[in-house]
Order: sequence, then C-alpha cells, then structure tokens
Amino acid sequence: MPNSASVSADPSALYYVGIQPEQSVLESSFSSDDILTAVADGYDVLALPVTNPSFRARVTSLASPPPSTAQPYPIIAPPTLSEVNLPPDSPYTPHVFALASKWIELDSNDERVANLSAQILKHELAYAAFCGIAYVVVPGPKRRNNVSRYAEALSSALQAAPFTNIVLHLAMAEYVEDDQASSVLNDQMSIWDIWNSIRTMCDYPSRLSVGLQVPPRLPTQAVLSRWFAEPVTILFISGKVFLHNSKGYPVLSKAHQYFMFKFLKLRPYTILQDIRESTQVRINRKPSSKDDESAYLIYVRHLHTTLPPPTAIEKFGASYEDYLQNPLQPLSDDLESKTYEVFEKDPVKYDQYEKAIYQALLKSKDSSPLTVAVLGAGRGPLVARALKAAKSAGVSINTFAVEKNPSAYVYLQKRKELEWGDSVEVVFGDIRSWRPAHGADILISELLGSFGDNELSPECLDGVKGVLKPSGIMIPQSYTAHLTPAMSPKLYATIKAQNKDEAAHTPYVVLLQAVDLLSSSIHQAWEFSHATTTKSKPATLYEVDTSLQATSISGGNRVGTSNEHNARYSKGRFLCENRGVMHGFAGYFESVLYNDVEISTRPDTINKKSKDMVSWFPIWFPLPEPLYVPDNSEIEISIWRKTDNRKVWYEWSVETFVSLPGATSDRHLSSSSATAYASSSRRIRLACSQLCNPNGKFSSMNL
Amino acid sequence: MPNSASVSADPSALYYVGIQPEQSVLESSFSSDDILTAVADGYDVLALPVTNPSFRARVTSLASPPPSTAQPYPIIAPPTLSEVNLPPDSPYTPHVFALASKWIELDSNDERVANLSAQILKHELAYAAFCGIAYVVVPGPKRRNNVSRYAEALSSALQAAPFTNIVLHLAMAEYVEDDQASSVLNDQMSIWDIWNSIRTMCDYPSRLSVGLQVPPRLPTQAVLSRWFAEPVTILFISGKVFLHNSKGYPVLSKAHQYFMFKFLKLRPYTILQDIRESTQVRINRKPSSKDDESAYLIYVRHLHTTLPPPTAIEKFGASYEDYLQNPLQPLSDDLESKTYEVFEKDPVKYDQYEKAIYQALLKSKDSSPLTVAVLGAGRGPLVARALKAAKSAGVSINTFAVEKNPSAYVYLQKRKELEWGDSVEVVFGDIRSWRPAHGADILISELLGSFGDNELSPECLDGVKGVLKPSGIMIPQSYTAHLTPAMSPKLYATIKAQNKDEAAHTPYVVLLQAVDLLSSSIHQAWEFSHATTTKSKPATLYEVDTSLQATSISGGNRVGTSNEHNARYSKGRFLCENRGVMHGFAGYFESVLYNDVEISTRPDTINKKSKDMVSWFPIWFPLPEPLYVPDNSEIEISIWRKTDNRKVWYEWSVETFVSLPGATSDRHLSSSSATAYASSSRRIRLACSQLCNPNGKFSSMNL
Repeated sequence: MPNSASVSADPSALYYVGIQPEQSVLESSFSSDDILTAVADGYDVLALPVTNPSFRARVTSLASPPPSTAQPYPIIAPPTLSEVNLPPDSPYTPHVFALASKWIELDSNDERVANLSAQILKHELAYAAFCGIAYVVVPGPKRRNNVSRYAEALSSALQAAPFTNIVLHLAMAEYVEDDQASSVLNDQMSIWDIWNSIRTMCDYPSRLSVGLQVPPRLPTQAVLSRWFAEPVTILFISGKVFLHNSKGYPVLSKAHQYFMFKFLKLRPYTILQDIRESTQVRINRKPSSKDDESAYLIYVRHLHTTLPPPTAIEKFGASYEDYLQNPLQPLSDDLESKTYEVFEKDPVKYDQYEKAIYQALLKSKDSSPLTVAVLGAGRGPLVARALKAAKSAGVSINTFAVEKNPSAYVYLQKRKELEWGDSVEVVFGDIRSWRPAHGADILISELLGSFGDNELSPECLDGVKGVLKPSGIMIPQSYTAHLTPAMSPKLYATIKAQNKDEAAHTPYVVLLQAVDLLSSSIHQAWEFSHATTTKSKPATLYEVDTSLQATSISGGNRVGTSNEHNARYSKGRFLCENRGVMHGFAGYFESVLYNDVEISTRPDTINKKSKDMVSWFPIWFPLPEPLYVPDNSEIEISIWRKTDNRKVWYEWSVETFVSLPGATSDRHLSSSSATAYASSSRRIRLACSQLCNPNGKFSSMNL
Repeated sequence: MPNSASVSADPSALYYVGIQPEQSVLESSFSSDDILTAVADGYDVLALPVTNPSFRARVTSLASPPPSTAQPYPIIAPPTLSEVNLPPDSPYTPHVFALASKWIELDSNDERVANLSAQILKHELAYAAFCGIAYVVVPGPKRRNNVSRYAEALSSALQAAPFTNIVLHLAMAEYVEDDQASSVLNDQMSIWDIWNSIRTMCDYPSRLSVGLQVPPRLPTQAVLSRWFAEPVTILFISGKVFLHNSKGYPVLSKAHQYFMFKFLKLRPYTILQDIRESTQVRINRKPSSKDDESAYLIYVRHLHTTLPPPTAIEKFGASYEDYLQNPLQPLSDDLESKTYEVFEKDPVKYDQYEKAIYQALLKSKDSSPLTVAVLGAGRGPLVARALKAAKSAGVSINTFAVEKNPSAYVYLQKRKELEWGDSVEVVFGDIRSWRPAHGADILISELLGSFGDNELSPECLDGVKGVLKPSGIMIPQSYTAHLTPAMSPKLYATIKAQNKDEAAHTPYVVLLQAVDLLSSSIHQAWEFSHATTTKSKPATLYEVDTSLQATSISGGNRVGTSNEHNARYSKGRFLCENRGVMHGFAGYFESVLYNDVEISTRPDTINKKSKDMVSWFPIWFPLPEPLYVPDNSEIEISIWRKTDNRKVWYEWSVETFVSLPGATSDRHLSSSSATAYASSSRRIRLACSQLCNPNGKFSSMNL
C-alpha cells in the first residue's frame, strides 16, 4: 500500500511508515477524512484502536462478578456504531491497521476476565475483518505462566477471522528498572521464549507475526539476532526513543540506526507513537517545525535512503533470501548454459583458482611443458584462467578440457575455435573414464557444492587418480564440510507447508537470512584430501579380503568398485548459551586449492579466505520437528555421508542435553550382564530427533 | 510356532519357551537334527548364534589397523559354510531365533570397529533372513555416549533386512556392584533411556523390539512398569537366577514369579540360558533329575498354568487391550442392540444406580407416589432397577422411560408389554424436549462417557432442568473428569501409522495395558453438577446483555440457546520423578450418583467406589509428537472443553519444565512498556506441544 505521495523509483518507497495517534486524540471516532489526512501527511498507515472507551465502559460494567457463581460468563454484544473507532464505510481502510484493545487479558487467571477478553478480541477482529482491515495488532500476554491459555485464545481468534493477519505486540526483552532508572536486561530471552511457545502451540500459523516495541535502550546482539529470525511485520517506535540533534531535530542514536538498517531487510512497517499533535491538530500548525510530528516522519524516511549499500552476496542474492533450492546434481544432470553463466559471474572464485594454478605452475615449472587438465570444464572459465596463469608464470602448458555435458562440450569446441586454438584440447567424456596418453602434471576441478563434497567431487576425482603423475598436483588439494545448529521458523514453516515427508529429509541450498545461529562454534565434520604426498604408486583405496580371493565370488573381484572409503561420520557438540529452538543446521565448506590459496563459505572465515565470493550459498539440513533448547544446553549433531556404490546420501540426527552441576563421567556399560559402573554424570538428556533420511530414502545424489 | 508336543486346549500353550545353549556347546555348527531334538525336548525355540568362532577369528585378523591410514575399512566377505552355526537347509528354522554376534560394537568410538561391526551385523542378518528366521537378537549398545551411532547402524540393518524382526538385547537397569557383591541400582532408568533414544531415532519401527535380561535382583516397580509399556518380545532368564526349593528343584523367587505373571500378559518368549547340559549331551542322561535342564523348563511351563485369574475388567476386556476405539456418540448416533447388551453385562454399575435410586426414594418418600423418569432409557435396565428399588423401599412410583432411539424405543415397548405393564410409561423423543404434564421427583440418567461429560450429558440434562420439581433429585448429582500424563509407545505408533492428521487430534476409548503413568498424581479437570440446592426456580444460566436488549438483534433474544456455560478449562501440573516420554494422557471420570453412592474409573479409587465396574475403559488423549521429560520434571496439561452451540469438542496442549535449584518467583510482566520485574525463577521450560484439535477441526461431538 504505497503512499501515493511517496511513490517513486526510489527503493525507499518500499519501506512503509505509519502513525499511531496519541490516546488523547482517540476519544471519538475517526472518519474517512481523518484517515485521508494521515495519508496526505505522508504516512502509509494509520494505527487505530477498533473500539473506544464507551465500549470499554460497557464491558467493564458487565464484567463485575455476578451474585451467583452459577453464571460465570456474561455474553457481550458486539460493539455498536458509537463504540467503534473505525468508520465502517471508509474506502481508505487499506491504510488502516487495527489495534485490539490493550486492556484485555487473554491469559488472566480469573476465568471471567479471560473469557470476556476472548469475546472482546473476537468482536474486534470480526469488525476489523468486515471493514477489510488486513492487520490487527493484539497485545501480548501479561504474564509468563499462562502461556497455554493465551495461545488457545489466539488460536481461536485466528480461526474466527480466517483472512486477518494478527500481529502480536511484544517488547523485545524484559527490563529491570534499577535505582538509577537505567534499565538492565534481566532474563533477556524471556519474551522471545513466550512468543516461541505461543506460535509453537498454534503450529506456526502463517497469519501470525510479531510487532516489536523498540526500546530506548536496545537489548544485546543475541536478542536482536534472535528477533531478526522471527516474522517481524511491525516496528513500533515511540517519539521518546528519539534523541535530538544539535539543531533540535529528532534523530535516532547510532545504535538505533544500525538496528533499523538491519531490521529493514525484513521490510517491516515502522509505526511511530507518542508524537505530539494529532493529525487533526497538526493541520492548524505551521508545517515543518522541530517538534512537529512530521520531523520524525521525515527523519525516518531519510533513514530509508541512507541504508548501507548491500554486500556482494546481498546484491548477488537479492530476492533469493531464505528461498529453498534443491542442490544441483551436475554429475547426474547436465546443466544449462545460463546456470554456468551465473557461476561465471563470481570473480573471486576464479581469481583464487588462478592464484592456485599460478603457484602450482611455478612449483612444477621444471617439468615444462606441463600437461594441465581442467576436469568438468563447463563453459571453460577455468581453462581461460589456466592459460592466463601460464602466461603470467611464463610456463608452457598443454591444456585439456574434459566435459561430459554434450552441450557444454559444444560450447567448449566453439571457444577452442574462437579463442584457444591448438593450445587447448577439448575432450568429450566422463572424467572418471578419461585415459590420456600421458600423465597430467596439474589436474584442476571445481566440482564443489555448498557442503563441499555434495556434488560428488570425491567420487569423480577418485576416478582420475591414475591420470596424475606421481609428482602431480591436484587443485583443489582438499575440502572440508562444516556445520552449526540454527533456528529458522521461516524455513521450518516453508518445509512443513510442502506437506511431504521427504521435504524435511533433504538438504537445501539457501541464502540464509531469517536464521539465528544457536552456537558460536562451527564444527568441521570431515575432510576429503586429494593431495599426493609420496612418489609411490597410489595405494588401493581399501583392503581386499585376500583370504577369500580364491573362493569368493564377490570379495576378490571388487578392486576399484567400492565407494566405502568415501563414507564419513562425524558428531559435533555445540554449546548454546541462550535458549532457543533448533530447526536444522547450516552447512558450509572450505577448500585448500593449493598452498595458502583457499576458498571458504564459513561465515567466520569467508572474509579472510575468499571475501565476496558469491558462488555458493550455505546448505540447510532441516529437522522434521523443532527441538527446543534451554539456556546453557548442548546440541549434538551426528551426520553421516553414506554410499552404496550407486548413490551417495546424508543421514543426520540431533540430541540435546543440559548439564546440571555435578561431576561428569562417562563409563562403559555392559548391557548383557548384571555388572555396571558408577556414574555421577549430571548431564541430562533433553530430547532427540529422528534419524533423518534413513538409507537415503528421501534424498540422494546419483553416481 | 507352538511345539507340537505341547499343543493343547490349555491357554498356557500360548506362552513359548526357548533355550539358548551354553557357549561350550556352540563350538561347531548345529544341524537340523539338533534343532529337532530341542523341539522334542519340549522347547518351542532354540536360540543360536548365526556365526561361530571361525568367523570371529577371520574378522579379528582383518580388523587390526593397517599400515596406512588411507585405508580405514576392510571389506569383510560374508560367512561361509564352515563359519555359520545355522544349517541353511533346515526345515525347522521356524523354531530358531538367531543371535547376532555379541562381540560386535556398533557404537564403538573406533571407526574401524564400528564399521566392521556394522558389516558383520548386516551379513548375519542377511544369512538369517535367507534361512527364513523371523527373530534376530542384537546386542544393545556398549556405552551411553554413542547412541546416535548405534541407532544409525541399527536403522541401516533394519533397512537391509526388510522382513526380519530385530530384538535388542538389554539389561533392565544398570547395577553397581558394591563390597558385599549385592547389586544396587544406580541410575535406574538409564538403560530404558538409551532404548528410548534408539527407537526414537529409528522412528518407532514396528520390527524393532526388546529382549530383556531378567536379573537376579529385580529393579524397582518404576523400572518394571516402564518396561511393561515397551515392546518386549523376549525375556532371557539365566539358570543362575533360579533358586532351589527344599527338594532341590529350580524355582523362581516370589518376586520373580510376580514379575513373570505380569509380563506374560505381553506374551513374550521366555528363553532359558546357562542351564547345564546341551541338548545333545542331555540325551545321554537320565531324564528328570533336579539338575536336569528340563527341570527348569518344567517349572516355567508350570508357572504358565498358575497365572492369577484375570480381574473382572481383564476378563471383560480380553483382546481389547490397547485397542483404540472412537468414543461413542449416543446423542447424535443411535446405538445397536448389541451395544446396549454389552453395557448391561456390568452388574456393578446397575447395583450402584439401584442403591442411589433406593436412597433417593427414601428421601422423597413423603411425596409418594413419586414421579420417576429414566432419561435415555436404552433397553430399559435402569427402569428395571428403579422398579426394584421402589419395591425394596416400599415407595409407590410412576415411571417414565424416555428414549430418542426409535429402535430402542421399540424394545422398551416390548418390555412394557411383557414385564412392566402400566407401571411404566414409555416416551419416544429427545429428553431435551420432553415436557411431561407434572414435574418429576427423581430424574435418572446414565449419559456418561469415559471422560464423564464426553457423551454430552451436561447438554442433555440442561434441557430437563425445567422438568424437575424444586425438591427433585437428579441421579447422577455430579460428575468430574480426571487426567494424568502417560507413556505409550504402542498407542503412539498405532496412531502414527494411520498417517492422518486427525488421528492424533482425537481422543480414543481404550483399555490401557502397555501404558506407563508418568506421575503418581491424577488431576481433576472439572465438574458438572446437577444437584439443586435451593427451592428457588432454577436461575438462567447466563447473563443477557440487557443494556442492548432494545437495540440489539442478537443479545436480547438468546435466552436458552447458548451452551457457553458448559465450556470448561483446566490446567494440571504433574511431577515426574523418573525421566520418560509422554505420548498423551489418560482420562477417567468419577460420579456421585446420590449421597455416598459413587462410581469411578480412576485407577486409585475404582476399587473403593465401584470395584469391578467394567462399563468404561479409560479415555486416551494423544499428542502428535512425543515429549521427552528428564528426572524430576514437571508436565503441565492444559485442556479445554469448548462449544459453539452446535457441537462440543476438546482442545489440549502440554508444556514441560524442570526446576533447577534456586528461588522460584512468578511475576507479572508488562509486555508493551519497557518496565519489568525481577525474577529469579530457575524453572526452565523444556518443550511444548501443539494445541491439539484447534477449533474442533479434527474431532467433536454433535449436539
């Protein structure tokens, strides 16, 4: 609903600002004209209570306890014309957000109060829905110990108004007022915790979101990151939160500005409160004075135009935030030209490869002319970089480009014709069966997926080991997979909405935004190494059960066909300082291309190793059900890379624990006899997930 | 697979007994003849290891770490003829249970050992499956900290042998040997905990069950009750557990006998171990000596014939144990004659009603002749009891039998014709619209369901309030609903297997057997009372919003149509001393018929109030997902009885907590402002369920 006055090509027009008039203004109803005035004043929305004090007075008189306890619940008739704030006939209701009555207590311990509150909410929602209002703001719970009651009332309300979006008005965190009247955070996650319980009980309804009250003193980064992953549709900012600059105009502190810059990525509505002057009174004043409410509006809109520029990956990934994609399978599938084109947009990756190739050429220069092969050449970008590196290094190379995608092979042929000529030989075929006449000095490949090995680079490169000279160099030398537990109600709800078992048993490639990492540590799960360290012939990759070679059909003849050596298992343990809920884990990879030339997608090392590299989004491994974890709990993630020689797949499971004070010991227990060992462990188990994707039933990669 | 020698009409033939020969006997393979001998000796099954020490020797030689770390996993060829114990060609394999190798370590921290163990297990399962063996016993985990690894190996094994039942061999509990060599229970639920994690990760597979090793000293009742609710298919009993009676024959202690009596309800196989003499050696000995293994067999079979007789409800409910039924809806449906017939089998209920009617008649005798009505008379059993009570009390009554089921009405007419004559007037119609010429002195009804009010007794009886004289008596006077959290993997798996959302959002009537109550307390949720305490006209049941009577269309005219007064809400808090997993909660009811005449299905009061009453099984409210609770945790169950005047339904949700040492305080928090209150609560939230059956979407009772 853009404000017509502010529509422009300016992207800040996408950030909507509203106003909630002060209480004193709301004594009487609003008319269509009042709404129009607010819009003319430059606001996109006007936030108004549904009902007025007359309605409250009537309800209050009914609410007093009756003489007989056999009659607990008065039935409240819906509000009449003199009791509503919103005009029923306004064409401007798209510009109105409705505020349900603040004074109701859906979670009261007094059953009458709770019951009346639920009736009032339903009436107000019904009237707002009738008027066509899309968003109704509902006050959050008043207490922490009646959350189930609140959730049921909310669930009932959601059902009663099936097209209305309900926004829960919440503080970000609880504050304790101390003597100096400075606020101190007490139990910083308590409000989030209440929100989490409510939405869990309501089963992650899509029409339920959060309206955060921005406090004068912002909570910690942990709390802000937590809310950033939640469906925040409104930010309420009181005029009292603003400072005044040297000229007397209202401004936000640097901390608040930074907060706004971050949270505007979620595109919430910003609703200003406690700004002196109503829309009606304002008309009579001189415009644009420092105390004028429009000064606040002007400032906020100004903020929208001064957002920091997007990072490389934000720019590259615009509109892909939290968008789940199935990982590519370039081995079993043939990619399209435009897919390769997107890959080739990433300058950093190819720069790193070029650096690595350059160093490898220098190292091997004595054996010049060198045989260099690009395995899985695609449309040839690594071939171009190899030629460039050879020129810089002054080394003569014979280059091969091997590709199994027949259409990409045609593209390579064209490049050979137009650019490379005889310096490059283009080979059509699977790299696993490529047998050149002479061994290669340098083998270059980029068969990496968001989790490193998930595009089956290990299996592909196993097949070329025989091609490399004993002194040859593989680029990349090795790669590792990394993971860390995370919360993402958005991804969870999206996956659940697919309503298919396999949806939660398959990993996705996704640019993570509305995601909160639950631990500060990232675990390295495993490594694949292709570095050759000795000059000896490459060892066979597994032992043959030679004792049976003569007699067994299977054992003796299986040289070279088993993929079992590429199976992996890892268990990571993570400390979660702040309570939260785990919906899955994020995965990254790192790779040593050669020497000190590396690439990484780990958020804590990417800037150091390959800043602004955009080629890979993280990977996301979901869980079928969310796992709640309290403060100072531990999450253990077990993950397997499994294979049956025809395909490769991941399996994963999660266990959660919390440690209580006391000695920890872990002893061997004997299951079948009656002996056991003393244990004074106070590490208590909290929950465990299913084992996901058992036997690759739901997702796998074909060899 | 009954042993042909023991097939008889004797129900003890349903209890199978097997033998696991001693280790020394298993040096060489078994032949078909050996299996047949065991069967001839009176055993139903023979438990044999799949492979022999030759196989183990071969594997061990392969398992030693190789020179190069690049070759972690030897591939073990499957066992050959000289390495297996089971003959591949035996027609008696239905009588064989296979034992996977005890020495494997699926959960080893050493990856080679874990990997080899998994290979061995798969080979052994494959061979057992080939032979057609239905049950394979697998050793449980050796440690507690690698459960996820064990679970994955087991999941893989289950997939590899898709028709084989896997029985996990486990101790019941961990014991600590102290100086006196008497065993002391250390962490009594730890083994169960490990089992629970494994089956949870494997997603409650139907082919996975438990083989319990019965210890010399039984664990606590809590542990026994816990295992009783699990899928126990085998009880392993060592000869060393037996005592010897005065004549020297092997017997079990009283505690063990009691244990056997209880657990035999699950129909497990009993497998005897460590009994001297193999089947082969035995043939050479004189039969029936006190040390003879057959003495053990004879004793166990004897036990089977001395089981305590079933209780009334066990007899009544035989074959209905853990069988989920949708609750009856006698209001909206018309029941069949045979359904009434089953009701009428319960003598206790009708005795109690007769007692209550008798006392009510005595109380009202001065107003004789009395008008007595049976509301919802069915086939008339309460009418008969009313007449009988009146005769005993020497009170003259005019009896009405009101029934809306037209076919039952026909049945009542027949009874009137044959038995009652003019003493009973039979009325066809809904009791809610019955308007007799004169008021009634006593109104009798039995409209109660397993949760008390779930067959809509409150709504039905609301409609007859106007029929009762001011001094009249309602039977029942009141009824209450009760609930307690419980574990039942069986019910959970059954509901889940239905694969429909509504299955977990609907209550069931079920005779609970494989169910473990998690708390010692049962919470009374709510009450419905029909007692009239004053002589005044019954008050209207709700307040009309009179301020709007003149102007509102709805408010003023709604006298008598709202059912809101029959809505209920309750929250029960339960302490769970022993960790467990909650799959739902069991529900019961109690009712005061009149004065001190009561009926109850609560397990802790049924014997006192209405012993052997079989008419009602408990009710079961499921949860869509299991909730694990640690030791000394708290479960809060919130339940609502809701109504929209057309139907009535239940909604429920569960939250779990654990209290850590520290002051507990619960303060009011203000959500929309920046003030808050200090809280030093150390009660931490662990998890919460969905709100089940929101808005009666999945299950409800029609008015």
